[in-house]
Amino acid sequence: MSRRSVLASTGILGGSLLGAAACSDAPSLAFHGVHQAGITTPILPFLQIAGFDVVARDRGGLIELLQTWTQVAVELTSRPDAALSLTFGFGPALFTEGRFGLADRRPTALTELPSFPGEQLDPAAGGGDLCVQICAQHPTTAHGAVRALVNAGRSSAKLRWRQIGSRDAGDRADPTGLFGFRDGTANLDLASEQEQADHLWVSDGPAWLHGGTYLVVRRIRLLLDTWDRTDLATQETIIGRHRDSNDRLDGVPAAHVRLASPEANGGAKLLRRSYSYDAGADPNGLMDAGLIFICFQRDPQRQFVPIQQRLASSDPLNGFSQHLASGVFACPAGVERGSWIGASLLS
Amino acid sequence: MSRRSVLASTGILGGSLLGAAACSDAPSLAFHGVHQAGITTPILPFLQIAGFDVVARDRGGLIELLQTWTQVAVELTSRPDAALSLTFGFGPALFTEGRFGLADRRPTALTELPSFPGEQLDPAAGGGDLCVQICAQHPTTAHGAVRALVNAGRSSAKLRWRQIGSRDAGDRADPTGLFGFRDGTANLDLASEQEQADHLWVSDGPAWLHGGTYLVVRRIRLLLDTWDRTDLATQETIIGRHRDSNDRLDGVPAAHVRLASPEANGGAKLLRRSYSYDAGADPNGLMDAGLIFICFQRDPQRQFVPIQQRLASSDPLNGFSQHLASGVFACPAGVERGSWIGASLLS
Repeated sequence: MSRRSVLASTGILGGSLLGAAACSDAPSLAFHGVHQAGITTPILPFLQIAGFDVVARDRGGLIELLQTWTQVAVELTSRPDAALSLTFGFGPALFTEGRFGLADRRPTALTELPSFPGEQLDPAAGGGDLCVQICAQHPTTAHGAVRALVNAGRSSAKLRWRQIGSRDAGDRADPTGLFGFRDGTANLDLASEQEQADHLWVSDGPAWLHGGTYLVVRRIRLLLDTWDRTDLATQETIIGRHRDSNDRLDGVPAAHVRLASPEANGGAKLLRRSYSYDAGADPNGLMDAGLIFICFQRDPQRQFVPIQQRLASSDPLNGFSQHLASGVFACPAGVERGSWIGASLLS
Repeated sequence: MSRRSVLASTGILGGSLLGAAACSDAPSLAFHGVHQAGITTPILPFLQIAGFDVVARDRGGLIELLQTWTQVAVELTSRPDAALSLTFGFGPALFTEGRFGLADRRPTALTELPSFPGEQLDPAAGGGDLCVQICAQHPTTAHGAVRALVNAGRSSAKLRWRQIGSRDAGDRADPTGLFGFRDGTANLDLASEQEQADHLWVSDGPAWLHGGTYLVVRRIRLLLDTWDRTDLATQETIIGRHRDSNDRLDGVPAAHVRLASPEANGGAKLLRRSYSYDAGADPNGLMDAGLIFICFQRDPQRQFVPIQQRLASSDPLNGFSQHLASGVFACPAGVERGSWIGASLLS
């Protein structure tokens, strides 16, 4: 892989689009490591997540793309003022017979998600061969990073969808979501190595994914106009928590937090790292906004899928939300210095 | 006007949606004053701007709406951790004969903008009876504020369009735009009372607008994929500045900054306060992003309109941009304590 600067050779974006100098207090997240950044590393307040279709014709073109993107990611995260993480994933379609010779390397768990009751998915707004999640301290940094990837990979990968999100700037693990309630309170305990081993990191199936994980992303519109006309007591019964104290409400077995809980799902847990999106008004003058639900897990078929099946059939929040887009991606382990994302799969 | 809390009586939004506690270093912007905030006050990095259609049937309903919105604005900006400005404007349609008895109070300059060559406006994404610009230190604060207005005015005003923007967090007056060049360098000089009097504040026409100004908003998509494939020297010739130094290029009379300059427009100047928007991917996999161009002026017919006519016919940037939505609004002077926005027009 060439050592010249990919960013310099594409040459188009000015420096200030690639790192926000204003955020000197932001954490610097190394790209290299045992695991990819953006999974257990601190959650930065601004998100870009995008899906791409690979248009390179052969395995060599795919390898070149991933080597180029690795170089872009290394350069972006090496800038002294960088405060961003990049996380790459591979979608089920990449493993289709006759494309890149990967059909026999597809992990069993990497299949398109089943249909869930009530969802209204736009296929063009989800899925895809490749996914990149970018989290940054500033929206400009996240924007510049996804754009650098688009530009560097233009001949080999076509942007399929892109979502832009934000969360409270505080470093709470459970920020306030658009419904006014904290989100992510009962999350996977990252302080526990055992929890990570049990629920997060892949350690079986094809060796290329060991140390990796699966990302599920869902665009969930939240019907804010309806929610805001619902009285607080009803909202709290639906969610299953007091809004202002965040304490759990007792005796509401059908509440959202109970239906989503590990106890209700055979112990299944997810590492959630969701963001809010805010997209304007719909043609009826209703708020177009919601949740970019993102979770990581060692097996989506045993974690996200059964939890979402339960929620889709019974969650009282369904009257206030619409699932609009979806994707599942296998995120390999971290990249060693000198190597590239996907080397374990493709070399 | 009632003194009970409008936010408490709508009662729906939790406190954390209405002010971001994380931003203790942010400026507090008073709602009351000689002029409205959000015009010459410091520019905060996050924007929501929205247009509303008044569905109240009579003048009394319109007055009640504006009194309620005033109370919401006072409460929002009075919170100890508040860091936001709200700026209200009235569109030409509000003055239509037979609606609210305002036909004879319409200033001559408050008419819908003429068509410009090349624009592709969606009427539903612009215009409207009322406009509110909200600038905040944090996206959650801006979102919560527009939502508080939507909720408090639900029976009288219907959301028509809403745009969400951001700018570099630095307090530079000319942040880097999505084309990688600084934007707003040659702006109205706010340190000069004379410039403000000559170009910004209304002092003729109907007395109700004296001390006010006009807001023009345009949603301008920037064709980033095309721009990013254009070499830097060509980009600099089109803009008329060196990208990295921001120095003007000599000898390029057709460059954007020259065509937009006061010298090329009979001395016409605008106070620009624009933001970037970032909205995902279009169906062709191209970046959907651009500029929420916002400017203030004492007479749009003599300032924005001739400048935009020149740009629309000759600007080399036209090959890289599309005007998608538009609005013009008269923003009255500031609100005295105890009064309400629009009192000079309606009482």
